[in-house]
Amino acid sequence: MITPYQKLKAIFAELAHYNYIQRIMTWDEAVMMPEGAGVLRAEALATLSTAIQKKLVSKKNKNLLTAAKQQGNLSFWDSANLNWMEKKYLHAACLPTKLVEKITKETLTCQQVWRKLRSQNHWREFLPHLKRVFKLTKEVAKRRSDALQLQPYDALLDEYAPGFNQKNIDEIFAGLKKAIPDLINQITQKQKNEHIKTPSGPFAIEKQKKLGLSVMRAMQFDFQHGRLDVSHHPFCDGNPLDVRITTRYNENEFLSALNGICHETGHGLYEQGLPREWIDQPVGRIDSMAMHESQSLLIEMQICCSLPFYQYVTPEIQHQFGQQDALTADNLYKLITRVQPGFIRVDADEVTYPLHVILRYEIEKKLFNDEVLVEDLPACWDELMQNYLGLSTKNNYQDGVMQDVHWPAGAFGYFPAYTLGRLIAAQLFATFIQSHPQFYAELKQGKFQSLHNWLQKNIYAHAASLPTNDLLMKVTGEPLNSVHFIQHIQKRYL
Amino acid sequence: MITPYQKLKAIFAELAHYNYIQRIMTWDEAVMMPEGAGVLRAEALATLSTAIQKKLVSKKNKNLLTAAKQQGNLSFWDSANLNWMEKKYLHAACLPTKLVEKITKETLTCQQVWRKLRSQNHWREFLPHLKRVFKLTKEVAKRRSDALQLQPYDALLDEYAPGFNQKNIDEIFAGLKKAIPDLINQITQKQKNEHIKTPSGPFAIEKQKKLGLSVMRAMQFDFQHGRLDVSHHPFCDGNPLDVRITTRYNENEFLSALNGICHETGHGLYEQGLPREWIDQPVGRIDSMAMHESQSLLIEMQICCSLPFYQYVTPEIQHQFGQQDALTADNLYKLITRVQPGFIRVDADEVTYPLHVILRYEIEKKLFNDEVLVEDLPACWDELMQNYLGLSTKNNYQDGVMQDVHWPAGAFGYFPAYTLGRLIAAQLFATFIQSHPQFYAELKQGKFQSLHNWLQKNIYAHAASLPTNDLLMKVTGEPLNSVHFIQHIQKRYL
Repeated sequence: MITPYQKLKAIFAELAHYNYIQRIMTWDEAVMMPEGAGVLRAEALATLSTAIQKKLVSKKNKNLLTAAKQQGNLSFWDSANLNWMEKKYLHAACLPTKLVEKITKETLTCQQVWRKLRSQNHWREFLPHLKRVFKLTKEVAKRRSDALQLQPYDALLDEYAPGFNQKNIDEIFAGLKKAIPDLINQITQKQKNEHIKTPSGPFAIEKQKKLGLSVMRAMQFDFQHGRLDVSHHPFCDGNPLDVRITTRYNENEFLSALNGICHETGHGLYEQGLPREWIDQPVGRIDSMAMHESQSLLIEMQICCSLPFYQYVTPEIQHQFGQQDALTADNLYKLITRVQPGFIRVDADEVTYPLHVILRYEIEKKLFNDEVLVEDLPACWDELMQNYLGLSTKNNYQDGVMQDVHWPAGAFGYFPAYTLGRLIAAQLFATFIQSHPQFYAELKQGKFQSLHNWLQKNIYAHAASLPTNDLLMKVTGEPLNSVHFIQHIQKRYL
Repeated sequence: MITPYQKLKAIFAELAHYNYIQRIMTWDEAVMMPEGAGVLRAEALATLSTAIQKKLVSKKNKNLLTAAKQQGNLSFWDSANLNWMEKKYLHAACLPTKLVEKITKETLTCQQVWRKLRSQNHWREFLPHLKRVFKLTKEVAKRRSDALQLQPYDALLDEYAPGFNQKNIDEIFAGLKKAIPDLINQITQKQKNEHIKTPSGPFAIEKQKKLGLSVMRAMQFDFQHGRLDVSHHPFCDGNPLDVRITTRYNENEFLSALNGICHETGHGLYEQGLPREWIDQPVGRIDSMAMHESQSLLIEMQICCSLPFYQYVTPEIQHQFGQQDALTADNLYKLITRVQPGFIRVDADEVTYPLHVILRYEIEKKLFNDEVLVEDLPACWDELMQNYLGLSTKNNYQDGVMQDVHWPAGAFGYFPAYTLGRLIAAQLFATFIQSHPQFYAELKQGKFQSLHNWLQKNIYAHAASLPTNDLLMKVTGEPLNSVHFIQHIQKRYL
């Protein structure tokens, strides 16, 4: 007899096929699609989304979930899988189709408007659009809140960083808020008299690509199950068996593309390392942005911003671009670890970055707790920016409140995942390096195998079978905290 | 009130979205997908196919079709559209799911086995697989025959060349069978003493690509709605708003890739020229392989194998690859119009090609009329090959009965479309050139606009609103016949 749980597994396996198709079509849109197909593509993807929603949310699935939970006798993985199934069901079922359609349309418009108005620094015209998106997002939060028994803003956080909420994030961020401003002062003071040479281009794109592919191969990226391409914004998408990562190249400067490739390779390795037997089930995929970012940032920040990495990669850089004074391991390392408070989150160094996120997190909390209105965001932003980074964004909306796509896209609650990811990465790497003190010597020679094996065994193999904090307890002996990140900053910069 | 026909239009529009997704995913599989994702991709596409089949074949759609036909009062286009809807429904509905699954599996296996056994010339081991595929295809033909009220083999022909059947194909092919053997004799006699120089490579792939793109632009291919890539076998897929054409390059020889690009561009221009307001409806798409091939072959054979084309393109060729004796318009034209009977259909010149198709057509007729068994195919093939082209394929299965993928793929009834396409192309071009005698002078200068405008108005704009013979009557004043093709061969070669 086929049990209710087995029936659910078959349904979710089919949903995984649809999801794979959706992801490749999204990749194709960003990487391959000729421009004129944009409207048709959006319509076709909307048709597919509706079909997926219908397949997921049904009376039949609801009954199967109830029956499967009563069935009992499931293995650890199956039981975790059932929990994820239910969560996915609740996340989708609590939103009426009309609301989904409305917010899809409104966020699409708001993003289009944002692209234009940001460059014009035009907050006033942007405001009514953002207000509409916020109002709808608040309704989503309210409905999710009822369905998941969480506070509204927590219900949003739960989508991007399952297991985290205002309470534990507040605690974790408190440590950062306390430590970072002092660290910035000490580090900028120390770096003041450093002499850094800027590499002079052009750096041919074909050569940048060869360099990137070589680093990916060293990192154990599996090209039988993945590829590297170009898109306007770098991303990682696809499926563990078909990982698509992208970067963008700039002829005048090669470090951004290389760093982007390292970051996306971190995502890609995580995907490729997920247990094959579970990839068509919710427990086998990583929906937690915090966890996924932890793996990309572990590679990008812990590994690829270190001196031993540059000791390994500089000869390859010289091989591609020839020799020049600026292309030494020491100089490139200094360049990549330069600390300087600035307006833009995505350009921020790893020391100031968390403050950008904390600022947004605190504003979002206030928004959802009705302590601030959308129209007050610029003032609120300016105040926090002055407090945290000593910079004024008064009347400078494009470098302030209008800089990110997240809010126009309705992705409130997303930002904390970026910093949680950095903290997870630091905490994991601290444990790894303690038991693998020889790793830096290996890294100098471009050997990533011991790190890859360790991540495979301790992180990738678990997929989503454990909540993030349980996984961290198991691997590092502690729940998530900011200590290891702060120690990492001290060690690298002071 | 929404009429039954309007409801059907909405359903078919949704099916068009799925079809678009299916086509891009198929393109991605051939062009982009890393090898290791093959099995997952096949499964995902099977899930999608099943969903499409379910969406198309339903009691609801059957009732809507009946009601829409009674509704009456439809415009010419709507009425043609409704006919196509019904045809698509009948084609799909007459096959039980089990049969579809069986034949999908059996043809997949047979193609895999064929790939291996062809290179080993191993007919005996291949035979049982082909027998199983033929048996299932016969069942398909029988069911289609009942549903469409056509003879079984005609029901298969109808899928690839709607409007054509054994009766009218026999008549058309009779003219070719009579004329071609003599033509081959005269032409090979005439070409005997021609001196042709072989261009000597290598021809860098990047340069071949530049050349191809330049020709595509001259031909008015719209890159806002299409692109050119590389795959193992050249094809054209996608959607009128998102046309994906591919070619393959060989460093030692550039004419094959160029010719392939011209052929696929012909398909692509047809797609891009289809009326935008109908592209999500059956009447707006070209399911007829005969019609689609007519447009690719018109470009490839009528235009791109002509001397004026080489007069235009040779300077571009020299620009890319430098000067050499073999790279003159005259020599390249001689090279591309060399006639020589051979074993392999896909390598055949345009004079001998129709005999390759007639051979297959006659064998298929005998198979479906029980006049020959699958085990007798090699003998049957050898006999016809000796009759038509004076070549023996005795014990040479790989260059004989095992050379094409069509039969292992279950695509019986497909071959005639290739030759019908050539005849349609010749007949259309004869009409065009009569009213545009200046075209060859334009072509010499790389100007395709007058041809493009004429095809746009007379062919592309009609999409599938008219049966092929009605369209030909309207444009050329005659139903399809072999006269213009034979005249074309005489004019070009004698």
